Amino acid sequence: MSNRFCIIMAGGIGSRFWPLSKNNYPKQFLDVLGTGKSFIRSTFERFLPVVPAENFLVVTNAAYKDMVLEHLPELKPEQVLCEPMRRNTAPCIAYANYRIMSACPDASIVVTPADHLVTNEREFQRIISMGMDFVEEPAHREALLTIGIKPSRPETGYGYINVDADEKGDIKPVVAFKEKPNLETAKEYLAAGSYLWNAGIFVWSMEGIQKAYRSYLPDMVKLFDQGRSLFGTAKEQEFINEMFGQCENISIDYGVMERSQSRYTIPADFGWSDIGTWGSLFEHTAHDEHDNSVSGHAVLEGTQHTVVNIEAGYEAVVQGLDRYLVALRDKSLLVCRLEDEQEIKHWIEKL
Amino acid sequence: MSNRFCIIMAGGIGSRFWPLSKNNYPKQFLDVLGTGKSFIRSTFERFLPVVPAENFLVVTNAAYKDMVLEHLPELKPEQVLCEPMRRNTAPCIAYANYRIMSACPDASIVVTPADHLVTNEREFQRIISMGMDFVEEPAHREALLTIGIKPSRPETGYGYINVDADEKGDIKPVVAFKEKPNLETAKEYLAAGSYLWNAGIFVWSMEGIQKAYRSYLPDMVKLFDQGRSLFGTAKEQEFINEMFGQCENISIDYGVMERSQSRYTIPADFGWSDIGTWGSLFEHTAHDEHDNSVSGHAVLEGTQHTVVNIEAGYEAVVQGLDRYLVALRDKSLLVCRLEDEQEIKHWIEKL
Repeated sequence: MSNRFCIIMAGGIGSRFWPLSKNNYPKQFLDVLGTGKSFIRSTFERFLPVVPAENFLVVTNAAYKDMVLEHLPELKPEQVLCEPMRRNTAPCIAYANYRIMSACPDASIVVTPADHLVTNEREFQRIISMGMDFVEEPAHREALLTIGIKPSRPETGYGYINVDADEKGDIKPVVAFKEKPNLETAKEYLAAGSYLWNAGIFVWSMEGIQKAYRSYLPDMVKLFDQGRSLFGTAKEQEFINEMFGQCENISIDYGVMERSQSRYTIPADFGWSDIGTWGSLFEHTAHDEHDNSVSGHAVLEGTQHTVVNIEAGYEAVVQGLDRYLVALRDKSLLVCRLEDEQEIKHWIEKL
Repeated sequence: MSNRFCIIMAGGIGSRFWPLSKNNYPKQFLDVLGTGKSFIRSTFERFLPVVPAENFLVVTNAAYKDMVLEHLPELKPEQVLCEPMRRNTAPCIAYANYRIMSACPDASIVVTPADHLVTNEREFQRIISMGMDFVEEPAHREALLTIGIKPSRPETGYGYINVDADEKGDIKPVVAFKEKPNLETAKEYLAAGSYLWNAGIFVWSMEGIQKAYRSYLPDMVKLFDQGRSLFGTAKEQEFINEMFGQCENISIDYGVMERSQSRYTIPADFGWSDIGTWGSLFEHTAHDEHDNSVSGHAVLEGTQHTVVNIEAGYEAVVQGLDRYLVALRDKSLLVCRLEDEQEIKHWIEKL
């Protein structure tokens, strides 16, 4: 029996992909790239060569539990952990840790978002296996390891990891985590060669992550410890429902990684994107001869550099657009300039 | 009992208003102007002060019979005449004429499209009454009368009627019917003052129109005469279904009006449009402060001179458009430049 576990964080609602992603159908359940598989399905399959199916946990909102099981029929219902409310990634990961601890106190764990793209899955699996081997070595039981993506452009939409590039070997000590930079800073990062994109994928041993929580988030640990004997039992959900709202709303990055003294990164290059914007979707999909990315039954006339995403069962004629986004899903229509897509959240508030 | 009858021609499918109008829901049943009434309902009500409800006949496709009765519940089912196929306006009017003849051989008749806009209904009713009075005079029993609209712009989308402007009185002899002109010719027509828009509304006596059919469309008259005793009986529909396809596919304009020697026009000015295009719809609806015409639940951002028409139950965000058309109806979406809307037919053929 393997002691390698995978935590898939799947609680997001992804409003940036409105109207494709909505509260009732968030991004992780979509196949926006037209691969035939949803993001969560692809994420699951990507980790399956490294972690056995019975060692996956998906943390999500109760409202999405059935959807998770539909996309991942290999999982038993108890492998889907339900947050009663959104409380950011530190409580989410703590919950999964306590569940894993109840069955396997010496687990090694990889934590991943549910909705990213990886194009080179073999290389991805090599990197993740390398990371797990690393944290399983007695000398690195306290290591908190992140995956850092070698940047290909001065991207301002990602956080960066500054590593000690002089260190030999595949795994580098982290110097600092950096917020999303402005373009000038992003260009400096790219030129320096010692900055990596933070992919939000973490690898650690149970011993290491629990020690870090106890050091940096002791209040949260106290809350979870109160129900320690309940994890993996019929009383777990009730305990979580009552306790979860008391947890600090804080990310694993702020709550743990930025405070840790034992941080490492594997610089990696496996074709990664968080597909966090329509623009990134545009980059990662096939284009027609006029540089349009078209999904669904649509006729385009005099249109270029445009994303057209039409729900199955609908049809569309799109004419005379240049660098636009046209998306129809779930009885909602969006027509906007691609360059203005970061405003989507504000527009939908007005609806 | 009145011997004044009204024939409403309602067989069109109106593809120019795609996706609002489709085979299963053509323009005459829509309320594209947001008046609260469909075109066919407004047409019916517009004629009701001139013609009693029991003297209306609606000629349509069998597929639309129930829809007609839904929009015009005052009519009995037998007042809706069903064409088994589209055969243009001459056979359509002939069918209605024979039905009327079976009940009222000395009728006077007004024929109208089902899907036009009239803004001054009082003036409209005055003009139609004047026309019916005219064709009921013994001296004008053979007159074929059209309604001519005084042009307000050099419109290239309508046919024109050239009248003898020197003739005194409200009703002018017709010199010639003119095809849709190019812009240069349309400007000449407008400047000349003796050209009127052909509204496709006709007034005549039964005697006059039957004589004209016998003279100019004798083959069609022969076909209808074979079943003369069946009109108004239970056998009428079967006769029509078998015979109608043998009729020449020809308009009343080509088949009768252009050949007649007894043609008249009433120049009129009652606020008329055929609302044949999205552009004309744009002209006749209320605009917001950015000159947008919006129907349905939509948020517009940085958008101007644009028509947004969203089906009930849907929502839309429309951003960054200038002089576009965005229409969502019946699972079909259209986004196009308003100036290119005449191409709609070609685009939907590709779908």
